[in-house]
Amino acid sequence: MPHDTAIAELKTLLGDRLVSTQADRDHHGQNESYHPKIIPDAIAYPTSTEEVSQIVKICAAHNCPVTAYGAASSLEGQHLALEGGISLDTSKMAKLLKVNDEDLNVVVQPGLNRIELNEELRATGLFFPLDPGANASLGGMAATRASGTTAVRYGTMADCVLALEAVMADGTIIRTGSQARKSSTGYDLTHLLIGSEGTLGIITELTLKLQGIPEAASAATCRFDSVEDAVNCVILTIQSGLPMARIELIDEAMVRGFNLYSDAGLPEKPHLFVEFNGTPNAVAEQAASFGEIAEEFGATGFERAERTEDRTKLWNMRHNAHHANRALAPTKEIITTDVCVPISKLAEAIVEAQEKSREMGLSCAIVGHVGDGNYHCGLNVDASDAEEMSRAKAFVGLLNDSALRLGGTVSGEHGIGMGKTAYMHAEHGDALAFMRAIKTALDPQGILNPGKILPALNH
Amino acid sequence: MPHDTAIAELKTLLGDRLVSTQADRDHHGQNESYHPKIIPDAIAYPTSTEEVSQIVKICAAHNCPVTAYGAASSLEGQHLALEGGISLDTSKMAKLLKVNDEDLNVVVQPGLNRIELNEELRATGLFFPLDPGANASLGGMAATRASGTTAVRYGTMADCVLALEAVMADGTIIRTGSQARKSSTGYDLTHLLIGSEGTLGIITELTLKLQGIPEAASAATCRFDSVEDAVNCVILTIQSGLPMARIELIDEAMVRGFNLYSDAGLPEKPHLFVEFNGTPNAVAEQAASFGEIAEEFGATGFERAERTEDRTKLWNMRHNAHHANRALAPTKEIITTDVCVPISKLAEAIVEAQEKSREMGLSCAIVGHVGDGNYHCGLNVDASDAEEMSRAKAFVGLLNDSALRLGGTVSGEHGIGMGKTAYMHAEHGDALAFMRAIKTALDPQGILNPGKILPALNH
Repeated sequence: MPHDTAIAELKTLLGDRLVSTQADRDHHGQNESYHPKIIPDAIAYPTSTEEVSQIVKICAAHNCPVTAYGAASSLEGQHLALEGGISLDTSKMAKLLKVNDEDLNVVVQPGLNRIELNEELRATGLFFPLDPGANASLGGMAATRASGTTAVRYGTMADCVLALEAVMADGTIIRTGSQARKSSTGYDLTHLLIGSEGTLGIITELTLKLQGIPEAASAATCRFDSVEDAVNCVILTIQSGLPMARIELIDEAMVRGFNLYSDAGLPEKPHLFVEFNGTPNAVAEQAASFGEIAEEFGATGFERAERTEDRTKLWNMRHNAHHANRALAPTKEIITTDVCVPISKLAEAIVEAQEKSREMGLSCAIVGHVGDGNYHCGLNVDASDAEEMSRAKAFVGLLNDSALRLGGTVSGEHGIGMGKTAYMHAEHGDALAFMRAIKTALDPQGILNPGKILPALNH
Repeated sequence: MPHDTAIAELKTLLGDRLVSTQADRDHHGQNESYHPKIIPDAIAYPTSTEEVSQIVKICAAHNCPVTAYGAASSLEGQHLALEGGISLDTSKMAKLLKVNDEDLNVVVQPGLNRIELNEELRATGLFFPLDPGANASLGGMAATRASGTTAVRYGTMADCVLALEAVMADGTIIRTGSQARKSSTGYDLTHLLIGSEGTLGIITELTLKLQGIPEAASAATCRFDSVEDAVNCVILTIQSGLPMARIELIDEAMVRGFNLYSDAGLPEKPHLFVEFNGTPNAVAEQAASFGEIAEEFGATGFERAERTEDRTKLWNMRHNAHHANRALAPTKEIITTDVCVPISKLAEAIVEAQEKSREMGLSCAIVGHVGDGNYHCGLNVDASDAEEMSRAKAFVGLLNDSALRLGGTVSGEHGIGMGKTAYMHAEHGDALAFMRAIKTALDPQGILNPGKILPALNH
């Protein structure tokens, strides 16, 4: 077996918490996206930072790859052990360690998932605002720089993490950031680790900024005659400085999916789902301002959702987009991909994506965190149909090219993982060499999640 | 002359824009704080990114240090050429290159100062919100991770920069980030360069996020019987989620300075200066909520400033704190220093600083961006009195120790420069080795602003 010396030493360290059964290896080799099954040699289940450090030291001593594994909800294969070795599963490091309510932050272990965090926080009047849809682990969210529906208001994980603890490639435990809300003391290792997908260090503790649960919240849906009208409404709303909590576009195809999967009964036109948070007066004022802007762009069919249960129903429908997408062609798989463009280019980008997918004979549904210029295309494909898969991959390539041409990025929130390394040079040009230099400096053996983010040198 | 080969080559490249007169060298060797005059060997005035690249290539070829120089308003000697070599003055790269009003951002050269930027933006209805007091250069603000009075609302430079262009230590020009509002593609070089004080690369272009000029703004001042009451009022206001645009503490000593310098006529008690921005209704609601909280802590003497000229007068008084501090002892110099602590520890920290300075026989005035937990101590010292200077430096040391003990940081916004390298290990521990590894990877010759941020290895 590959890495058997490392695995034997890990077995001595962890006992039952080093697992190499076929079932567990298969489980840790799966992903929610179109990537193939890639199974690790063994799974380690540490219970403490000190154990993570010892695991990494053993792996370093034997040149054994180690890939952090959270809730496995990443979409570009970030958690897959591409070169084998150890899958370091954080599920036994899932504690809420401390609520610093006076400082509006919370200290957690990386394996805690975001929904469980908010359940534990309920009594405090505070909440962690980021909502990527999936019940992702907080360590994974930081490692992949996740965001989601509320990023338009609260930013991404890059904005919501105050401090980290991480185990570096030689097993050293470091702390970055502090409990202070800002600092200007030296290189920003917190932001360097966020989005590094476990390739520079393994996050073992996070201090996360919390928000007060808003006094009032109001959600609404409305529809437009065209995607351009909907997106232009978003652009003007953003430019007007209205502090939306969420603003989501659902295109005609995805609305059809919502009707099929959630029995939504919505007219098959582009919709916006919006939410405002704040004091009752502020929410009312913002909702009214939004209504005026939306009407300028021909919005109709306004539906309000103000009670908690109605808002939950609305956002559950949105979060079930993957299933709704699948409902458009239940026998097929989904390739989901995201790009992000400047908001001024968003209508152009989305219309181009719709037209291009039709031209290419692909079934494509679009949802977007449009306040950020970020949108997702879900393609219904038959994974066994090589020709259709090839068309779908060509479409993803055109989407990435288009995002870069419009001044954007090949991923707003799904990340690079193993799925988008081929676009790193196109996006970053000469900066890529400095990313490589940082990787080499911090992980000279290349044992941390090898094969992710950085393309092979011949790309 | 040291570095004469490099200087001769730079003279050929730049002609009149390579200056080595004593007057210009003296000018570039000064600083606004207590650091000694440290003069560079020559000053280069590039006009383009391409020229910056050529300058750095020449310096690299001859192992000649190169230190970026903006408005020279940094307070820890960041712009001083500690090991000689070239001062790279960005004053001839001070253009506003492009306003992307639809995307709420602006592209600028690094030598443009923040006040000039906002003057140029006036007709657009947009503004750049960060306000560190000094009319700093935007490149310098990014390089030092500056913030100031409005960070409580808009964040620091870490939050307000969307993308950078930089020249690296080998002369390579890179671009980081994009025009998109978020991205999860690879290592976050933007945040790595922000706050790196020109030690990892020289910023040659910035894309900055803008804000809409708020419809309404309202400022107010009030006073408290004790610093604890004032700070506890701030803590509760922050916890209540009130979106303040500014909230500043002025302690009794600094109020005395304001009275002396600005004829403010304020009772010599701790004051808060606050500002709310937004729609007229939101501002009124926020101001009323703040008033209620402040009264719980015994605030009196509320004064409103709603007209633009009244608010300008108020914030000018605040921005003249350095002069006000000097007015407390006009024959002396000022040592100014900043630390930042968790807001829950702020009252404790400030009271301790006041008591300790009194015990040590030092004249100390405190102003603070208290919504961030960040405060500044200005000490009146006679620079020729070695004993007083020694007491002052001991006080700064105690202040830093206290900030770290309370879970904070030795600088909220002034940075490390040459002034605080001795505290880097105490703050960052084992993480410091990884900062060194990054410095070595990106600037193996150590020519970019040597001697800054990272302490010598024997520290």
